[in-house]
Amino acid sequence: MGELNVSQSMQQHVKQARDASLAMANIDTSQKNKILHDLAETLRENSDEILVENAKDMTIANKMLERGELTYSACKRVMLNQVKIDQMAQNCESVAALPDPAGKTVKATRLDNGLDLHCVSCPIGVIMVIFESRPDVVVQISALALKSGNAVILKGGKEAQNSNRVLAGLIRKTLAKSDSVPENAIILVETRDEVTELVKIGSGIDLIIPRGSNELVRHIQENARAPVLGHGDGICHVYLHEDADKEKSLDVALDAKLDYPAVCNALETLLVHHKYPDSWLANILLKMQDSGVELRVCPETKKRLESYPDLNLSAAADIDWETEYVDLILSIKTVKSAEEAVEHISQFGSKHTEAIVTENSDLAEWFMNTVDAAGVFWNASTRFADGFRYGLGAEVVVSTGKTHARGPVGLEGLVIYKYKLYGNGHVAGSYGKGKKDFIHQDIKL
Amino acid sequence: MGELNVSQSMQQHVKQARDASLAMANIDTSQKNKILHDLAETLRENSDEILVENAKDMTIANKMLERGELTYSACKRVMLNQVKIDQMAQNCESVAALPDPAGKTVKATRLDNGLDLHCVSCPIGVIMVIFESRPDVVVQISALALKSGNAVILKGGKEAQNSNRVLAGLIRKTLAKSDSVPENAIILVETRDEVTELVKIGSGIDLIIPRGSNELVRHIQENARAPVLGHGDGICHVYLHEDADKEKSLDVALDAKLDYPAVCNALETLLVHHKYPDSWLANILLKMQDSGVELRVCPETKKRLESYPDLNLSAAADIDWETEYVDLILSIKTVKSAEEAVEHISQFGSKHTEAIVTENSDLAEWFMNTVDAAGVFWNASTRFADGFRYGLGAEVVVSTGKTHARGPVGLEGLVIYKYKLYGNGHVAGSYGKGKKDFIHQDIKL
Repeated sequence: MGELNVSQSMQQHVKQARDASLAMANIDTSQKNKILHDLAETLRENSDEILVENAKDMTIANKMLERGELTYSACKRVMLNQVKIDQMAQNCESVAALPDPAGKTVKATRLDNGLDLHCVSCPIGVIMVIFESRPDVVVQISALALKSGNAVILKGGKEAQNSNRVLAGLIRKTLAKSDSVPENAIILVETRDEVTELVKIGSGIDLIIPRGSNELVRHIQENARAPVLGHGDGICHVYLHEDADKEKSLDVALDAKLDYPAVCNALETLLVHHKYPDSWLANILLKMQDSGVELRVCPETKKRLESYPDLNLSAAADIDWETEYVDLILSIKTVKSAEEAVEHISQFGSKHTEAIVTENSDLAEWFMNTVDAAGVFWNASTRFADGFRYGLGAEVVVSTGKTHARGPVGLEGLVIYKYKLYGNGHVAGSYGKGKKDFIHQDIKL
Repeated sequence: MGELNVSQSMQQHVKQARDASLAMANIDTSQKNKILHDLAETLRENSDEILVENAKDMTIANKMLERGELTYSACKRVMLNQVKIDQMAQNCESVAALPDPAGKTVKATRLDNGLDLHCVSCPIGVIMVIFESRPDVVVQISALALKSGNAVILKGGKEAQNSNRVLAGLIRKTLAKSDSVPENAIILVETRDEVTELVKIGSGIDLIIPRGSNELVRHIQENARAPVLGHGDGICHVYLHEDADKEKSLDVALDAKLDYPAVCNALETLLVHHKYPDSWLANILLKMQDSGVELRVCPETKKRLESYPDLNLSAAADIDWETEYVDLILSIKTVKSAEEAVEHISQFGSKHTEAIVTENSDLAEWFMNTVDAAGVFWNASTRFADGFRYGLGAEVVVSTGKTHARGPVGLEGLVIYKYKLYGNGHVAGSYGKGKKDFIHQDIKL
């Protein structure tokens, strides 16, 4: 038999992952946790090997940096050291300490005497995760997949190819030793061609999670046959209502923009009610400007701030409202009403996180109900939209989709449920008009 | 301005539905229920008009039946009468009586003093439902969409075009009178071209639910940009283990095949352990044969039943294992072990419903955990896989997907959740190393 082509070998990988996922359906929490602890140990014991492989990646990354093919921050993300290896090991131990999301009886119903229906959480099956730069994601995602009982196909960035390979190898070695989880529960693929083939496969992969650039996410969303969990743009708004508290609006707006401008939950457009005091707005924008933020405003905002010549205001173009700057740029729009703010968000928002600053609790509830986003915040910075801050224990991805899982997704996003029916020879033909009735009684758990 | 083309007018429909969905985000349960009761009354009051329009469809349907373009059962499904109209009205009242799936706080966490995170169930947004023949689905789906707070775009079968139109019109009239839900919460489209355009739209439609033939479902799954909830084939298996009880195996197998062969939860392939008594198997198959079932067997099964000349056994071809007969045909395969049964199901099953008959509870648990299907049954007929039988109150669709909702999907499948964060000017920059810690305390609901 000759060499397999890319398509055939990806089909084979999916089959291997699927077989592994079936074998994983019966392992219990203690077995999973033991493997996670073994993995932590394996990582610590093999630090030298990991660092040797990472050094190869760093040599290439540094050359790419010199040639301007890689940014400084991307280059930095590739780098591992003893501290980071220890963090990866600790991450495995933390995941072991989390509750098992699978095997929980969500609901149980007695359909009839001796006929009990249990809705039980279970792994999704085979998950594909695509990510960039950071090799520690190999360990993080493998740990989460293992804990939730899913097999995972990983594709990392080529900048970290050697590091990814050694880490995936150590994980597979740990699994092979486990006697309970097959090593094919973790499969690493390395090229874009392989991903292209995998994304096209109609069955076998149950969920795709792209973590990375907007372009990557959009490409996957447009081409995938399996459901996709992730987010493209993060265009978050803060709306300052006319009755907003002075300090709260200042604090929330500044934190949302400045705490970490390069991420998806940072503020991009500030919406301001036309009766919100001009002097307060000027104060906020001056502080933004002092922190290096470029200000792009609508004509109405320009006009109301005419008497503040210290403010350096450029005119916002139409494209500004639909741009995720992830940078020290802020667009500002004056609106006539909360309704107009919501309409703007509905048109330009990315369903990520949207905040209102107001002292009116009814208005806040109305805003939070009406705005269609994963996070709707009242008098709080959009920057809180994060799995760690939410207390989820682990963050798999942030989703701006509308089904399955939304916002920061924890381990719960990696499970679904199945219906187990326990009978005693029961048949459907016994029920109906003139025959037996169903009981449909909740069984207390 | 000239006429809109199909693509433009579908974009407009999606915009109208989306605007309606935003307006629906703030209506409460009592408002929804009032509209459902009003709708029931409207349907009863307008029975004559409904029957007149339905008669037009029936005239065409009967001609199509004569020309062989429509089956008798499809033709029958188009027909409405006073009883059916009354059932539609009652259906609205039943949906009003169901608990509201939206607005429930699923989980609440205190992140810090004065900073509370609530995970709250909410409508998905805009849903498109595609169905065939039965015009009463217009009312059924509209009622479920309304109760869950979603706007819905409906496409029915062209056989029931006039009936669908009058029903959708009455629903929209009821909404228009309501002052709380815009009439565009229910939009009816009528042609395949319109569906083709809608399916291609990348944003605006949040979920597509195809209910109908395998071809329809597969076409939608392959072309849709939005998530799809539904099922194609229903290839269900019953596995008789060597220790299965005689009566239970007979009852379960016969009911699974014969109770209603034309539906997706009917038995298609019987898997039998090689040590399961041949005489019992012969008895089951004779009863199947007496009920008009054609029997297609693997060579091993043929051999073990040689001494039962009354059995009319044809040889199963490879294609039989992957065929949903939805007819009086059964394929039978002898397996060496429960593992082989599970492997067969893994290869040919459609993730719908799979049953094992055994007296061994450990084996049953292993089977139910390992088999990847929405329903995994022990000593019970596959025919129980149904929203009504499960006690869900309403069935939106049966899903064989692996994310969001699985198996018979009730109202819960039409909601997702959003995170509401209640703060008091809180900013993310206050937390972290050397600063404040999060509390992450569960708030009791």
